[in-house]
Amino acid sequence: MDLDVTFLGTSGSVPTAQRAPTSLLVRRGGERLLFDCGEGTQRQLLRSTIGLVELSEVFVTHYHADHYLGLPGMLKTFALRGRELPLTVWGPPGLRDLFGGLRRIFGRLTYALDLEEVRPGDALDRGDYRIEVIAVQHGTPGVGYALVENERPGRFDVEAARGLGVPQGPLWGALQRGEPVELHGGAVVEPADVLGPARAGRRVVISGDTEPTRSVLEAAIEADLLVHDGTFGSDEKERAAETGHSTAADAAELARVAGARMLALTHLSNRYFGPEILREARAVFPDTVVPRDFDIIDVRFAERGGPVLLRGGAKRRPDESGPAESAVELGRRT
Amino acid sequence: MDLDVTFLGTSGSVPTAQRAPTSLLVRRGGERLLFDCGEGTQRQLLRSTIGLVELSEVFVTHYHADHYLGLPGMLKTFALRGRELPLTVWGPPGLRDLFGGLRRIFGRLTYALDLEEVRPGDALDRGDYRIEVIAVQHGTPGVGYALVENERPGRFDVEAARGLGVPQGPLWGALQRGEPVELHGGAVVEPADVLGPARAGRRVVISGDTEPTRSVLEAAIEADLLVHDGTFGSDEKERAAETGHSTAADAAELARVAGARMLALTHLSNRYFGPEILREARAVFPDTVVPRDFDIIDVRFAERGGPVLLRGGAKRRPDESGPAESAVELGRRT
Repeated sequence: MDLDVTFLGTSGSVPTAQRAPTSLLVRRGGERLLFDCGEGTQRQLLRSTIGLVELSEVFVTHYHADHYLGLPGMLKTFALRGRELPLTVWGPPGLRDLFGGLRRIFGRLTYALDLEEVRPGDALDRGDYRIEVIAVQHGTPGVGYALVENERPGRFDVEAARGLGVPQGPLWGALQRGEPVELHGGAVVEPADVLGPARAGRRVVISGDTEPTRSVLEAAIEADLLVHDGTFGSDEKERAAETGHSTAADAAELARVAGARMLALTHLSNRYFGPEILREARAVFPDTVVPRDFDIIDVRFAERGGPVLLRGGAKRRPDESGPAESAVELGRRT
Repeated sequence: MDLDVTFLGTSGSVPTAQRAPTSLLVRRGGERLLFDCGEGTQRQLLRSTIGLVELSEVFVTHYHADHYLGLPGMLKTFALRGRELPLTVWGPPGLRDLFGGLRRIFGRLTYALDLEEVRPGDALDRGDYRIEVIAVQHGTPGVGYALVENERPGRFDVEAARGLGVPQGPLWGALQRGEPVELHGGAVVEPADVLGPARAGRRVVISGDTEPTRSVLEAAIEADLLVHDGTFGSDEKERAAETGHSTAADAAELARVAGARMLALTHLSNRYFGPEILREARAVFPDTVVPRDFDIIDVRFAERGGPVLLRGGAKRRPDESGPAESAVELGRRT
């Protein structure tokens, strides 16, 4: 099952020429989950190689304008397209109140809009994964989110299956899905006879805006990917505390203690370009990346090498020089 | 006096990868006037070679979201910068009501925000030019705007001045400003003695969203530049009428009858790329252009050749290939 994270906007509260306000798209199999939707997110999607797909869910972390101001325009665009598919927006308490004001901007929609308020500790079950809602510290009602996959069945032992006389074919599939099977002679083979120990699913944690805080650390224990507030460098440690944000080194220390596989820092203040934030964080936690807008992290299973940052890139006009798209794999420490 | 128009957003109600929602910056001397402010305008400015300058005035044409949704984020960014310079937003009736809702998004500002409602027929005097408010037809309260320069003094006749014994120096300047001067011998020279006939100022008309309508035509008579709604091609003539927009050919016919020098079509529906709109309009009015985002029209005085479209271009990341900026002059029919 493919799982990746596209950084659509990586700026702090003030955008820059290079970084749009916060938004992040998680793709898992055929699903598309948007986390935060800063001003211009619909166009960041259009400019990406993904396009403005018919999202069915948006998860908002908190109600500072740089995290939701792209919603009214995007909802309106969906309506102008005549969309009929319902859309759910999830967010901490205050969501319905916020939309009382926003509705007047986007007017009548052609589809159902469901607003669902969530609280830390909530978990939204999705069959083979769940979305956990995490407490954060940002001086305003806010949450983080974790996408947590269920354990996967253990590795299928082909030799053992053959030794027990299970013919290759549908019976192998049934055993892999955890179902016992009966052979022609009447013997029953249990999944445990042919499967190794269950393997961990993946865990992607999105902190939203937050000070370094224990609840995020706990959610990030052995996470494959922690996307964390990295608004400031150590030179602005006081300001980070005053404004409810983290420094790069704070976030790196948290990732180190949690034993995360990869830390991606985002929400950079416009006083930084990226490399200085990366340097400070890597001194503490080497497996840190600072994605640029349109970069993608492919969250590969641990046995396939773990997460990898792919350099994305906006689509170009046909007459612009340079490669149309590039997705080169960045060197990553292992 | 320099006068130019930068197209920050040229899409219709739905943005595309190439075109952002409507916004246009007029620069005249040291002044910066923003007309409409669609979602993402602050970033379009940041991405342009102009930057997010401290605008002191924004003129809104009407209250469809694609024309104002960039305001709350931009006002908020100015506040986060600690701006103290007051800012005035002008718009048709409904402006204060609109801001009643938007204020909650941008919160407290660090500067005075003045909201000024205008009506067709109003004229805002600016000393050597004025902003005229124009009636439009778009099915919602809306206006267009015209920037109209005062007449300039006629050409200074150096030979005549010398013949009358006016020494080169401050007296020439006084005559050029329209003041009579007294010579050493007591003779008085009147400006009319040394100045040719007064020369027209420039006229830039911005229609906003509108059907082709007489009030815009009248405002556009002998305009140097008419920026007009060109949402649709002739294939969507009915849809244009239903939605209160113009076709490229409608706008071109209006520019032809008005005797405008240049027509710039904008607000393109996302079903068009630009060249097809340009083709239809040029068949009727050859001096048409269809700017792309970041293009600039330099509104030169008629005696210097009239307006010229300059190809702009967003700033690139230092590591992106291609020219950093380009502003090549486009061939223009004369």
